[in-house]
Amino acid sequence: MNKYFLMLSILVCQLVYGQSQDILSIRKFTNEHKGQLINEFTKFLSIPNVAADTAGLHRNAAYVMDMMRSRGIDNVQLLNSSTPGTPPSVYGEVMTKGATKTLIFYAHYDGQPVNPSQWAKELSPFEPKLFNGDIYKGATNITYPSDGNYDGNWRIYARSAADDKAGVFSILNAFAAIKQSGLPIGYNIKFFFEGEEEKGSIHLNEILENNKALLQSDLWIICDAAIHASGKKIIVLGVRGDAHVNLTVYGSKKPLHSGHYGNWAPNPAMMLAKLLASMKDDNGRVTIKGFYDDVKPLTAAEKKVLQDVPMVDEQLKNEMGIGANEMIGTSLEEARNLPSLNINGMESGNVGKLATNEIPSTATAAIDLRLVLGNDWRRQQQKVIDHIKAQGYYVTDHEPTDDERAKYSKIVKAIPSRSGYNAQRTPLDLPILQQVIAAVKTTTKEQVVIEPTMGGSLPLFIFEQYINGKTVTVPINNYDNNQHAENENIRLQNLFDGIETMASLMMMK
Amino acid sequence: MNKYFLMLSILVCQLVYGQSQDILSIRKFTNEHKGQLINEFTKFLSIPNVAADTAGLHRNAAYVMDMMRSRGIDNVQLLNSSTPGTPPSVYGEVMTKGATKTLIFYAHYDGQPVNPSQWAKELSPFEPKLFNGDIYKGATNITYPSDGNYDGNWRIYARSAADDKAGVFSILNAFAAIKQSGLPIGYNIKFFFEGEEEKGSIHLNEILENNKALLQSDLWIICDAAIHASGKKIIVLGVRGDAHVNLTVYGSKKPLHSGHYGNWAPNPAMMLAKLLASMKDDNGRVTIKGFYDDVKPLTAAEKKVLQDVPMVDEQLKNEMGIGANEMIGTSLEEARNLPSLNINGMESGNVGKLATNEIPSTATAAIDLRLVLGNDWRRQQQKVIDHIKAQGYYVTDHEPTDDERAKYSKIVKAIPSRSGYNAQRTPLDLPILQQVIAAVKTTTKEQVVIEPTMGGSLPLFIFEQYINGKTVTVPINNYDNNQHAENENIRLQNLFDGIETMASLMMMK
Repeated sequence: MNKYFLMLSILVCQLVYGQSQDILSIRKFTNEHKGQLINEFTKFLSIPNVAADTAGLHRNAAYVMDMMRSRGIDNVQLLNSSTPGTPPSVYGEVMTKGATKTLIFYAHYDGQPVNPSQWAKELSPFEPKLFNGDIYKGATNITYPSDGNYDGNWRIYARSAADDKAGVFSILNAFAAIKQSGLPIGYNIKFFFEGEEEKGSIHLNEILENNKALLQSDLWIICDAAIHASGKKIIVLGVRGDAHVNLTVYGSKKPLHSGHYGNWAPNPAMMLAKLLASMKDDNGRVTIKGFYDDVKPLTAAEKKVLQDVPMVDEQLKNEMGIGANEMIGTSLEEARNLPSLNINGMESGNVGKLATNEIPSTATAAIDLRLVLGNDWRRQQQKVIDHIKAQGYYVTDHEPTDDERAKYSKIVKAIPSRSGYNAQRTPLDLPILQQVIAAVKTTTKEQVVIEPTMGGSLPLFIFEQYINGKTVTVPINNYDNNQHAENENIRLQNLFDGIETMASLMMMK
Repeated sequence: MNKYFLMLSILVCQLVYGQSQDILSIRKFTNEHKGQLINEFTKFLSIPNVAADTAGLHRNAAYVMDMMRSRGIDNVQLLNSSTPGTPPSVYGEVMTKGATKTLIFYAHYDGQPVNPSQWAKELSPFEPKLFNGDIYKGATNITYPSDGNYDGNWRIYARSAADDKAGVFSILNAFAAIKQSGLPIGYNIKFFFEGEEEKGSIHLNEILENNKALLQSDLWIICDAAIHASGKKIIVLGVRGDAHVNLTVYGSKKPLHSGHYGNWAPNPAMMLAKLLASMKDDNGRVTIKGFYDDVKPLTAAEKKVLQDVPMVDEQLKNEMGIGANEMIGTSLEEARNLPSLNINGMESGNVGKLATNEIPSTATAAIDLRLVLGNDWRRQQQKVIDHIKAQGYYVTDHEPTDDERAKYSKIVKAIPSRSGYNAQRTPLDLPILQQVIAAVKTTTKEQVVIEPTMGGSLPLFIFEQYINGKTVTVPINNYDNNQHAENENIRLQNLFDGIETMASLMMMK
């Protein structure tokens, strides 16, 4: 193939697919290094990264530092909060001579807790395994190919394969690809990898404040969450906030025989069921007083981009196997712009083979509150607690004493999470956002979806509040990555495309 | 102490405490052999006896046979059902020359399932441990005394320490005590120890039918369950029936991120909460259509003995730490004479440290139905299922197919247990019942409580139906024995008193 034919081909590609020559060079790098990249990635996934495992988190941070140093990133270091024991963030930078602007790329290396017994039997959260597709569609485990010939539809299953080690992977490999391809970087590039995101970024404010000068930038680019369910790339302007309330309802101090005391002793599982049931109506609308009152409406410009988001409700219902959505008459995009209340977990006594004829002594639920602009996370928690009181409950923050048990017939321990945060949204008219949109468009022939609010949550308000940082979220993961649950996975093509997306931003003009 | 003083003492005891001389001889035997008896008992408790462990059940049966043979009981053998794999019952007999009547003593050697993680941390279900009292009142673990000097208030903690290896213990040691004390037995005595009671005695009918002649008797004496909460001995005329329904409600095929899909994808935990909540009103009364319709009222005589049952509602509320009972205005004894619906267990997603920000894919509940005379167990299960249908659910007996998922927005898998049974009650005017009451009265100075219906369930109707057997239940366990739950225990004095109770019945005239 001669030089002119190559140049012509690149030009044709660019015209047909909207992809720039620089991006095609990045793709070439990725294609030639797949084996090496996946090998480094699976080693990363093998290091346990749950909040309870401090040593594991430190090993992850050290691994990230090694990856950064091996790519020639400068000034690599751990950034600590003022609170001892906090998992550190990992920082690095590449300063560009004469640059007028600075971009800082964010991802996090910690992961959600795991309950290995809930994972598919051939999977183990910290033993990344390769499958020839989606296990929910019958894919099977295959060995890692020694020739590096990976198919884009294959998937790797492990905790944080998507959320958010895929973010660290795509950012660091985008930089490697640019550097090794000899492509130009116009801005200063900084790297910031957090270690406490899944625990609610409790100490992120301290880390930012302790390192204000180091972390100055014109834009934080958050590489987390998933692209659009249509498969189109997505740019997200904001996120929902998040807070939790954990509930424990009390029956007898000891579990009782359901024959001897059935329908005489109160059953906390039934009490909890009635309490939770009181929180939503049959149309999925939250019935807690004032729950939707504080919501700040979308602007006209935001409403407009929202209208352009492809509708995937029917596709998702079909894929998820659900006959109807929860809030009748509300689309997915509309639902994401409302505060939500969800039961993450519920437990009392035993079910299945372990079930016994007992009246359990307690029943527990974990409640998740998502918030939109206008909501205050502590106020939203308080609304839930006020609702519980209105159902006749005595609300306490400790195990009930004998006196409390004697005095109150309905007792709940309600623990609002200390780590919550509000929603955030970057204004659509921020000039640098247009550069971001233009950059991502160089990587795809498809529509780039602009979403005012992501359903999920990230602590983006912290950047605004503590170092006046602007943020935009640019996800790369497949939407069906099972993040936060069992069988988390990343589709390999999303990893490879993610390198291109991040590279386009690093080369932003 | 001379002979006359001893005789005088015995006479005084008998007058003051209502205890016969024969019973005092039994007590002497027990006091002199405590070490040996407890040693044999703890070995018995060390053999796992859950339904899933067939080999363990066979080892238990073999141990019971050894205990019987070592006491000189004749014709010891295993009785099998016609269904291969059923745990055998253990039989033995002592025929009395010239006896006109036959008593058959029943207990069961199998136990409820265990979830060791729910037990107190110093306990393990099949490592019986001795405590100097009730662990819920701060008792501590002590070593088994080498001198056999056991205090009656000490407790042994293990699965089946009460339910129902204590029954096997008291029956076999009553016989040993009578024999070694040279006391007279007037009737033929048979022994029948079941191995499948906690699984619902599914094959008991086959065992009875296969051994009709061998098992003929004038009365089955069922040694199971607990004495009255007042501490008084109790004779129980009947039991509630029992059946179960297991429910699984379906959301998305896979767990989802509660941020991305919260309040759009249906949450099965919330669906289950609403479904369960619909089954009872706020006064604890079951709202399922026709739930109380079939109940056969108590006779005048039964109502009379019911009135004589000591009221312990306030004592129990205090001990259990509950401010109010579930069915407002209904006493414990009244509640036991009504059919009941209880949630034994409920599970969806994860709580506590394992909680993640997910929308679970399923939610499960185990429901227990207790029945009184007049209820039919299959009809009662059907009422629950009809109620679920009336809430708009599509009810299936299998994992929903994709077509079913697409067609129905509310899907529940409802599995009615195949092993249920009806309530039973022996008529109060059966002549031999008067002998039973008189016999137990020889062992105590206190009131002997007569209860028309025990709250718990035993498959007593099977004896009636398949071999025309009459039954009476004579419990020995402390009421706070945690049977069917974690931290099951037996108070030692109840074991020792149980020997006296069973002996009084074997010596019945």
